[in-house]
Amino acid sequence: MLPQWIIEKKRDGKALTEEEIRSFIGAYAKGDLPDYQMAAMAMAIFIRGMNPQEIAWLTDAMMRSGHVLNTKSIKKPKVDKHSTGGIGDKVSLILAPLAASVGLAVPMISGRGLGITGGTLDKLESIPNYRTNLTEAQFISVVKKIGCSIIGQTSQLAPADKKLYALRDVTGTVASIPLITASIMCKKLAEGLDGLLLDVKCGKGAFMTTHKDARALALSMVRVGNAMGKRMAAIITNMNQPLGDTAGNALEVVESIETLQNKGPADLTEITIASVEEMMVLGRVTKNRTAARKQLEKNLADGTAFRIFREMVKLQGGDVRAIDDPSRLPQAKLKVPFAAPSAGYVALADAESIGKACVVLGAGRVRTDQAVDFAVGVSGIRHVGDKVNKGDPLLVIHANDKKRLADAQALLKQAYKISKSKPKQPPLIFERINGDTIGKSK
Amino acid sequence: MLPQWIIEKKRDGKALTEEEIRSFIGAYAKGDLPDYQMAAMAMAIFIRGMNPQEIAWLTDAMMRSGHVLNTKSIKKPKVDKHSTGGIGDKVSLILAPLAASVGLAVPMISGRGLGITGGTLDKLESIPNYRTNLTEAQFISVVKKIGCSIIGQTSQLAPADKKLYALRDVTGTVASIPLITASIMCKKLAEGLDGLLLDVKCGKGAFMTTHKDARALALSMVRVGNAMGKRMAAIITNMNQPLGDTAGNALEVVESIETLQNKGPADLTEITIASVEEMMVLGRVTKNRTAARKQLEKNLADGTAFRIFREMVKLQGGDVRAIDDPSRLPQAKLKVPFAAPSAGYVALADAESIGKACVVLGAGRVRTDQAVDFAVGVSGIRHVGDKVNKGDPLLVIHANDKKRLADAQALLKQAYKISKSKPKQPPLIFERINGDTIGKSK
Repeated sequence: MLPQWIIEKKRDGKALTEEEIRSFIGAYAKGDLPDYQMAAMAMAIFIRGMNPQEIAWLTDAMMRSGHVLNTKSIKKPKVDKHSTGGIGDKVSLILAPLAASVGLAVPMISGRGLGITGGTLDKLESIPNYRTNLTEAQFISVVKKIGCSIIGQTSQLAPADKKLYALRDVTGTVASIPLITASIMCKKLAEGLDGLLLDVKCGKGAFMTTHKDARALALSMVRVGNAMGKRMAAIITNMNQPLGDTAGNALEVVESIETLQNKGPADLTEITIASVEEMMVLGRVTKNRTAARKQLEKNLADGTAFRIFREMVKLQGGDVRAIDDPSRLPQAKLKVPFAAPSAGYVALADAESIGKACVVLGAGRVRTDQAVDFAVGVSGIRHVGDKVNKGDPLLVIHANDKKRLADAQALLKQAYKISKSKPKQPPLIFERINGDTIGKSK
Repeated sequence: MLPQWIIEKKRDGKALTEEEIRSFIGAYAKGDLPDYQMAAMAMAIFIRGMNPQEIAWLTDAMMRSGHVLNTKSIKKPKVDKHSTGGIGDKVSLILAPLAASVGLAVPMISGRGLGITGGTLDKLESIPNYRTNLTEAQFISVVKKIGCSIIGQTSQLAPADKKLYALRDVTGTVASIPLITASIMCKKLAEGLDGLLLDVKCGKGAFMTTHKDARALALSMVRVGNAMGKRMAAIITNMNQPLGDTAGNALEVVESIETLQNKGPADLTEITIASVEEMMVLGRVTKNRTAARKQLEKNLADGTAFRIFREMVKLQGGDVRAIDDPSRLPQAKLKVPFAAPSAGYVALADAESIGKACVVLGAGRVRTDQAVDFAVGVSGIRHVGDKVNKGDPLLVIHANDKKRLADAQALLKQAYKISKSKPKQPPLIFERINGDTIGKSK
């Protein structure tokens, strides 16, 4: 069967068979099928869509284009979380050790930031000497020892996705639910999990801007995971404003440490606890959400989760002196408050504009081959509903360059609105999709 | 503007601007835009379509990717014909000299055959030494001298189309009316014409199998031509059975010579006369179709058209002894009748099966880089409505290889049906689209 015949079938809106998907993706991964045929197929999938069964086959074919982790030797329930990405989203750094503290195993393979969306790997690499490139044996060994490890994607992990992701970026085929689903799930399911929680960010600073789109993506990923025999849950969370009080790599590590020491901001703490609660249900280490939450609050309060984080950094080669004394983390030269133009209540703290300001400062990258500046970003972010006086800092800009600082200041002018009346408090979690709500998790 | 932004616009079903189309096609022609972006765009165009204005801009951009003939020195009305291709379609060989005989100039740039569809160039090249690769100056000079010339596509003619055509073939984006329209029209309009007649073949042996699809393509091409200031007409003709009594390169040259000598089959003669009649109206050399037709019949009967053909062959280097004595044209070693299995009337003479048999014999090519065998094909094709006795030849197979002969015989078994009762005579011309019928020609 010629590749163009398979393309034509999808072009005409027909469902592909498992064999068609497997041979197409297999040939692409091996380099036997050129980019232009994959580009035509991606566009046909973008416009015509795929049914849940096709998406599951696509995910499986992409997963099997590379190596699947052998996690059989890990006896604890293996549950991970994936976030679709946002501004200030440092949840993984707190969540992994917190989940480990309640008996779960979290073998987390993370990515780097791109555009306004930060990446867990960039944050961790701001800790001096932290190694994100462990071997598989080292990775499994850390998870077995302390219950979690966070590393980067190896070249053996879903190579078809690596190629396709780069191609989609330049062919107008990014925002496709089947393609996003397969791209995320093929990497996560290659971790050899029992269960997976999805945090689908929704809002101005996220890939999915509407609740409807976010739910469609969440359901698509939940269905694929279930079809592949995994226990799945999803939360749809608010990404109209940044999560927590910082954005920028080292700044977010500091905030993560504070949160692990029970001194973090309420929104970040709450989303992390809610996430691990779902993971505990998926991992079957609890049936009682109230008791689970109490346990999680305790493990933050008494330092249990923090100690696991510190141990993870140590086992992965990181300099724990920077954990014990965060002033040893990279520091920006310039720290400049961005002042409220008037008194009142914060009515808008736009995640997208703040994210763009961070990219301009050097905290993020526009192309995958760019380096990031770990030190820069923003801290002390005020959120919607906060009361401010004229001249109070709405946030503090951390910059290493005056030109970049000025560009960031210009962008931030659009980020904030101050109103006289107190605005309605926006919800943190829009929706939970889990066994209780959809009864589909196995 | 990044190319992917233009792709995304078309992907979402929006109309592109002239500048967007021109920059995209211009970059592709220059090699600055990779095949995978063009493939994604082609698929988006395939599924989302284009409005007539977009198709005209696309055609113009593709035409301007290369050289446009300067035909100003030709003072006669310049009118050409383009056929979408079929089995036994040798009309161009008769039409060009016949049109020249009534005062039109026909600067015809033709293509080669691919698949079951024959190509005018392959037919002409079966005449020993006939040159299809004249320089532009030579080409113009022949047209000025005798009123017509038939040559092949140069590398300077619409290079964007050459690249895109090859890409469409392997990306499932062939059967798209905007892309077919632009591909045909960009080459034809680069000939510097005043008017163009389209012969859109329709039926089992043609690219367009239904009248509806054929009309859509014809109207799309007529609209684009009109938008680019050309006088346009189209005929939609029957390609359920082969046109004329032969299929195969040298065999079709013989039949063309016979038709130019007024001894050709009725269907071929009629379509040629009807076509030139339309061209005369487009070229404004007649206003009276009845008088025009009389003139054309006379020019076939008295040898005027034949003499122009002979002169064209001579001026393009061809061996005119093969025109005067067609037995000097390439001859196959084996000439084997294909006998009627029963007595009755021919109810089916399937163009597709007969075309496939010709490809198997070596008369056509499956890939563009293959050579053709000029000598092979079929002759004496009996048509729907013909009365036959059991054992009468339905056609004669001309082969150079016993294995290929056997394969062709197997294919031909599906080509014919004989019925007891006389079937209804199928129409030759389904529809004429011209100034009289749509009032759109300028």
